[in-house]
Amino acid sequence: MKAAFQGVHGANSEVAAAMMFGKSVATIPCPRFEDVFDAVGTGKADYGIIPIENSLAGSIHQNYDLLLAHPLHIVREVHLRIVHALMGVHGTTLKDIRRVRSHPQALAQCSTFFRRHPRIEPEAFFDTAGAAESIARDKSASIAALAAPQAARLYGLQVLLPHVENAEDNFTRFLALARKPSPLPRGVATKCSLAFRPARNVPGILFRILGVFSLRDIDLLKIESRPDPRSPFEYLFYVDLAGNPAEQRVANAFAHLREVVSEFRMLGAYPMGTGSVYGSSRGGHGKRSRHRG
Amino acid sequence: MKAAFQGVHGANSEVAAAMMFGKSVATIPCPRFEDVFDAVGTGKADYGIIPIENSLAGSIHQNYDLLLAHPLHIVREVHLRIVHALMGVHGTTLKDIRRVRSHPQALAQCSTFFRRHPRIEPEAFFDTAGAAESIARDKSASIAALAAPQAARLYGLQVLLPHVENAEDNFTRFLALARKPSPLPRGVATKCSLAFRPARNVPGILFRILGVFSLRDIDLLKIESRPDPRSPFEYLFYVDLAGNPAEQRVANAFAHLREVVSEFRMLGAYPMGTGSVYGSSRGGHGKRSRHRG
Repeated sequence: MKAAFQGVHGANSEVAAAMMFGKSVATIPCPRFEDVFDAVGTGKADYGIIPIENSLAGSIHQNYDLLLAHPLHIVREVHLRIVHALMGVHGTTLKDIRRVRSHPQALAQCSTFFRRHPRIEPEAFFDTAGAAESIARDKSASIAALAAPQAARLYGLQVLLPHVENAEDNFTRFLALARKPSPLPRGVATKCSLAFRPARNVPGILFRILGVFSLRDIDLLKIESRPDPRSPFEYLFYVDLAGNPAEQRVANAFAHLREVVSEFRMLGAYPMGTGSVYGSSRGGHGKRSRHRG
Repeated sequence: MKAAFQGVHGANSEVAAAMMFGKSVATIPCPRFEDVFDAVGTGKADYGIIPIENSLAGSIHQNYDLLLAHPLHIVREVHLRIVHALMGVHGTTLKDIRRVRSHPQALAQCSTFFRRHPRIEPEAFFDTAGAAESIARDKSASIAALAAPQAARLYGLQVLLPHVENAEDNFTRFLALARKPSPLPRGVATKCSLAFRPARNVPGILFRILGVFSLRDIDLLKIESRPDPRSPFEYLFYVDLAGNPAEQRVANAFAHLREVVSEFRMLGAYPMGTGSVYGSSRGGHGKRSRHRG
């Protein structure tokens, strides 16, 4: 089984792949997100792993755009807590470190560490795992990297501090994409992701659309509007709901929805991910209170 | 008049400040977004300028969190098209350039340029304007920066290529924050931003909430749900609507909304920004089709 991801080995997307498909999954690093979609489309990979939203940075519209442009299906999701571990070559101690290399966003998310250690300078790099790899390659004793703990194991680095991030509530939701929908296991809570464009110039259209779900007691897990990049003056909606398209009420809701939207795309039906946005220790997604459409 | 912004001089936030308050506004660079909020809160600045959403990267939840944590008011908005210009020291030509320095996200947004010029290497830096400043300071003839065209003027650099970005539809929406609400000019379309948490365990709560607006023919310009970082198992909603709180129907809607939500925060009422997400050439926000709650 092969899973394509954006970034270099040790990236959070690769950690997410192992969470979804086990540690034996073969991973294929890709330079850009487009390449991940292409790897799945051409059959070079069975799955593509993409981040879709982050608890601090929001939904990644760019990947929603790629989802809409490619005929792939979401088959799995997982919520990964983003940990920035400080790592250096073996034998190094925190006292030896003069510079810390990572992605600017990771460096910003560890600003408290840099204020506590004013003699340590941050250094911008393309990505977190790449920063770890570069330190292992250069064997520099005075430079450390901020990356996922898995990158330390992979590149033979030593973790100097396991958690350097300021905030604990930094989670990224990853999706696995495939050419065909996956059969849904019985007795497991299912989630559906949809994208649609409301019909134009219909008064109260959003109210009508939500009525489609509310009238059938279908819980919404996410709703987001966004100006449509392909069509000025129009909006796109992203909705995640709790339900299986094999259920009659969900199938009815989709039929009803097609009456009131001008474009409708089912992005996938998949088991609700373990590890909620707040971490598995505080309970999974299924336990959350939801807002009914 | 003083406006605080995150980044260094020449950053897109500073460009947005000039768009909102004129070129004579005195700008105060701040290392972190928190510092921007503090500068306004303590009176060091009259306004704070923050990015709130980007057409490719989505809503910046971190800044919504800061909005909820600080008693400031949104008083202005603007949509800025993000342009990455290639700039170097005077006398340099594209042929001399061996490396291009910028923020990793800007470098990724110019991937087509790097594929066309395989001998030019990208180099990660903390921010776009800072990359321009570093090149002007080092006077390096073989390194260029990708930054806003304004950074070239500011640091005395020469623009080698005015548009290196892959996509044209990259817009960031910026907000101006102040300690007090601004008086709203008459005859100008007004926008309100709200945040609220729906009441728990009420069936069809989201449908009821949208009914508050739909029943009064109030247009929604944005709706987004998000897991509440301060309270597991609950959601936060962000809504932008077309209307002025001085209008009776809008005031009525807010009174009605308080009945069905457990927490309600009016983030600000402000003139609808000129320059839509799709650029002023294609028409402002006011011209867009909207979805009625």
